[in-house]
Amino acid sequence: MVFVIKIGGNVLDDPAALQQFLQDFALINGPKILVHGGGKIATRLGDQLGIESKYVDGRRITDDATIDLVTMVYGGLVNKQLVAQLQSLGCNAIGITGADGNLLPAVKRPVKTIDYGWVGDVKAATLPVDRWQLLLDNGLVPVLAPLTHDGAGHMLNTNADTMAATIAIALSAQYPVRLIYCFEKKGILEQVEDESSVIRFINPDLYAQLKAEQKLFAGILPKLDNAFDAIGKGVQQVLIGHAADLVQNTGTETTGTLISA
Amino acid sequence: MVFVIKIGGNVLDDPAALQQFLQDFALINGPKILVHGGGKIATRLGDQLGIESKYVDGRRITDDATIDLVTMVYGGLVNKQLVAQLQSLGCNAIGITGADGNLLPAVKRPVKTIDYGWVGDVKAATLPVDRWQLLLDNGLVPVLAPLTHDGAGHMLNTNADTMAATIAIALSAQYPVRLIYCFEKKGILEQVEDESSVIRFINPDLYAQLKAEQKLFAGILPKLDNAFDAIGKGVQQVLIGHAADLVQNTGTETTGTLISA
Repeated sequence: MVFVIKIGGNVLDDPAALQQFLQDFALINGPKILVHGGGKIATRLGDQLGIESKYVDGRRITDDATIDLVTMVYGGLVNKQLVAQLQSLGCNAIGITGADGNLLPAVKRPVKTIDYGWVGDVKAATLPVDRWQLLLDNGLVPVLAPLTHDGAGHMLNTNADTMAATIAIALSAQYPVRLIYCFEKKGILEQVEDESSVIRFINPDLYAQLKAEQKLFAGILPKLDNAFDAIGKGVQQVLIGHAADLVQNTGTETTGTLISA
Repeated sequence: MVFVIKIGGNVLDDPAALQQFLQDFALINGPKILVHGGGKIATRLGDQLGIESKYVDGRRITDDATIDLVTMVYGGLVNKQLVAQLQSLGCNAIGITGADGNLLPAVKRPVKTIDYGWVGDVKAATLPVDRWQLLLDNGLVPVLAPLTHDGAGHMLNTNADTMAATIAIALSAQYPVRLIYCFEKKGILEQVEDESSVIRFINPDLYAQLKAEQKLFAGILPKLDNAFDAIGKGVQQVLIGHAADLVQNTGTETTGTLISA
């Protein structure tokens, strides 16, 4: 079983939670991949440098200054701090972006109504599975920053959830894969305020029903869409759970929401 | 033959020179490693962020803010821009620091008279040669930022010349190695103002003589010391030359200064 595990800003921005998470992650046996998001530090540093966050129709735009900023912060500071900490915990982490070894080929998002700037969409079809296997089969633990490249010399800002799903899909042809999205709740909740109302299993039928009944918090829909896309394309298990529950959620007695076909 | 090639700030800070260098580097056949320095961008960004460059007895000190700064800039921005550009030139670059895969173990420099802060000295004896071979033998081209880690969770600022020499020494047990230091002159010059006065070959005897006669520019001595250290420890060839002469200096008709035993 390969674990592809994604953490977001809520863990990265909380040193105590992060430390606990990394300890738990380091203890997972067998091949594993960590995909991380950004966190608040890019915004904070951008403010200090006078790099304005630009939005069009509520969507963030990655201009020249912003791609340099996130390449520094996500690909440098955040990524290498995670690697150094994992190394200190006996986990042989290797920090990468999608550009490194061309491990996650991408394309600059085409301009339709909105020009997102230096934003990448991963090209799942050309992902070099053998190169990922080379790392995993030799005991290396890829730690992936949310960045790719366009093949023409530019780095691209890229959604970490989608990157995790794409890798999980590609690897599922060779290994059983559990894709785990860690977030700030125990799982998908039936009542958004009630942490004990985790929906333990969701399949496509239930998902359609929950959406029709508008029972799901809108912010979780992209994550669930990614999850069902992964399941539809061969990933054995997708789990959405709390970062603090990683040990349980990598075992058989999971506490989060398990997505299956 | 493995080429271990180091470039410094003078190339990194000159986009046209860098582009030419990367084109030449991409064309080198067979296994190769690029080790890069920092360049002016860290200083410029540090100024913008109000991070003061601190010196004690003329030696730069890496405090908490500075190690974060160089981790961002060297490990993130500079490293990934090099990787993306090399990828666009058909070179399968993988950007790393010494922390990644623990490829270059290091130790925080012990405090004697000066506390250098977060500065690393590489531990040559524990360098995992098999892991470097894994990358090289599978067609990956390591691009190494001047950073290591202390094994206890901290990144360390590390001298790129020394890193390049250490890797060259370790690999020389398995491959013939040419270590190339690219800098802003054609080679070691007999007359510092005269680019046509390149000393084509230096061996330990001539080096001792040139030093005794105080014929060498003081700034070049650490590079030459690194070079002779590498030669003394098994590296077949060390070449010091101009970045623009990379094609010649990876061939048989070199234009720079060749250091040999």
